[in-house]
Amino acid sequence: MKTKKVTFADIAAYTHFSKTTISRYFNDPDSLTLENQQKIADALVALDYKENKVGRILASGRTEFVGVIIPNLYMHYYSEMLNQILATYETYGYKFLVFAGNENPGAERRYLEELMAYNIEGLIVLSPTISSQELAGYNIPVVGIEREDQYICSVNTDNYLGGVQAASLLKKSRCDILLHINADLPDLVPASGRIRGFVDICRENSLAYELILTDLGNTFKDNCERISAILDQLEQKYPHQKKGIFMPNDTHANILLNLLFRRFGKLPETYRIVGFDNSPISEEAVIPFSTIGQQIPVIAGEAMKLLSSLMEERKKRRPVPLKEPVHKVITPILIRRDTTD
Amino acid sequence: MKTKKVTFADIAAYTHFSKTTISRYFNDPDSLTLENQQKIADALVALDYKENKVGRILASGRTEFVGVIIPNLYMHYYSEMLNQILATYETYGYKFLVFAGNENPGAERRYLEELMAYNIEGLIVLSPTISSQELAGYNIPVVGIEREDQYICSVNTDNYLGGVQAASLLKKSRCDILLHINADLPDLVPASGRIRGFVDICRENSLAYELILTDLGNTFKDNCERISAILDQLEQKYPHQKKGIFMPNDTHANILLNLLFRRFGKLPETYRIVGFDNSPISEEAVIPFSTIGQQIPVIAGEAMKLLSSLMEERKKRRPVPLKEPVHKVITPILIRRDTTD
Repeated sequence: MKTKKVTFADIAAYTHFSKTTISRYFNDPDSLTLENQQKIADALVALDYKENKVGRILASGRTEFVGVIIPNLYMHYYSEMLNQILATYETYGYKFLVFAGNENPGAERRYLEELMAYNIEGLIVLSPTISSQELAGYNIPVVGIEREDQYICSVNTDNYLGGVQAASLLKKSRCDILLHINADLPDLVPASGRIRGFVDICRENSLAYELILTDLGNTFKDNCERISAILDQLEQKYPHQKKGIFMPNDTHANILLNLLFRRFGKLPETYRIVGFDNSPISEEAVIPFSTIGQQIPVIAGEAMKLLSSLMEERKKRRPVPLKEPVHKVITPILIRRDTTD
Repeated sequence: MKTKKVTFADIAAYTHFSKTTISRYFNDPDSLTLENQQKIADALVALDYKENKVGRILASGRTEFVGVIIPNLYMHYYSEMLNQILATYETYGYKFLVFAGNENPGAERRYLEELMAYNIEGLIVLSPTISSQELAGYNIPVVGIEREDQYICSVNTDNYLGGVQAASLLKKSRCDILLHINADLPDLVPASGRIRGFVDICRENSLAYELILTDLGNTFKDNCERISAILDQLEQKYPHQKKGIFMPNDTHANILLNLLFRRFGKLPETYRIVGFDNSPISEEAVIPFSTIGQQIPVIAGEAMKLLSSLMEERKKRRPVPLKEPVHKVITPILIRRDTTD
């Protein structure tokens, strides 16, 4: 049995305020004295008032919705980032409408259109599918994470420093040849900084190095086949040299490590491995492996902090738009475990 | 620059229908002839009408929101289930408000209250924190997955059959002693069926077996320490016997497998392992391991199908409430890989 809904008229009658005053309590509480706010708050408890947020949304435009577009949940990095983004609910109270794009720009666009129809207040985008220019055109606050971000605000790891850290660690492990496997990333993608940082350290120190820039595929099966083929090449090309391999992420570093364990029953002396991300798999692997840690909780927190400030600005009577997108850069942390010296 | 919003009045003027007819097009289209529906649809394109869903929601109560409460994204099973639930967007069009409870009943209740204030249409709950009785009290369609489900609809794996399959596979692998490690689950938790299925097969076939029912903790570190301690015990108690171990899930099976590889450089002849779930880690492990596959895409699909039918029923003029909660059971699939004979 449903009890009758308590209306603004009921609250007005109970408190002897006007309905306009009650409405102001919900939509602009600071315009009332603290004493009157308290009287109305007490009345809500006495009347067992259940807030109808949909009604408030229509009145105030504050949906408290944030859209999150991730590429997939297969990559451990995305799964952990989503985890940390969801955890910001406790701090900011925003509710997340989550979508996994799976490289389908059509579906992603359709979903974005839907989100807009729901008056979401902001957007966090990890998916690289839709250009920052197009995203900026939606005309709501957007924060990108580790994707092309020319026209939108973003929070990224200092990828260049990450590349520097990885090469330096492999140098310290006295590898004979340093290798970096990655996709052939365009300069606009933040992660391409890893390649530049890696190369700069190798050149500065006159270290032998090779870049293997190739598409490793998007499924586990593809990843395995292609990394296995690369391993065969390396065994042929550098049979007795100590190979220091900087992998593009922990998911792929884990695959390489497993392939080596299957062949040798251990990590042979001729291999050293560094991953990237510090996602859970780097600890949960057959042996915990060294990695360049992205501070995922910090990145998620900073992204929400930035987005939240942009969303708050929007709600002011005279919002001041940003002149330039803000790009925050978070320092990566070198994590030495059992796959480097 | 924003263009002026197209209103129902504009559409009415353009089509020469009344505003009431336009409203019916949006909220009860079947009450119009197909011809008239087409005329209005054409007008929307001609006028470049942008739907304001928030307005529609208020009119129709159809928010198209579904709340999803997962316990965490650390367990690979939950991460993959969420992935598959999100993927149903393409089929049903529901948008998902996602929350990770992390065993904080207070935060979970607060979030549920918020979801209710947003008029969500239904709820999928994987988190075990809040009792099905309490969930049923929210008086909206709820589907549980692999959690206590006395008072709510649910979709679960046939856990008993899973236990039967695991014990049978270890029997076929001619293990000397069969072991099942699990939490001491109450009978109301669906997963407890695995224990019963395992024990029944051992008894029927007079196989030596042991149940190790203990809390393995909720963090990776706890899991590792406790599984490592169990491994020490097993080495002492059954040093030369062939031990067939049925682990409670793939995350924990992976930890056991890694501990064995670290000690022996391979899976020794004295160990056989079966996991549960067929989550991605079972393939991505140091060697792919045998597991009882939960058909995660099927479960996610059936859960949304069931929830969708409940939500549709609600929208009828005279909804017929369910007499009893519906419990769908999905058959698990035995997946033989490299850790059993």
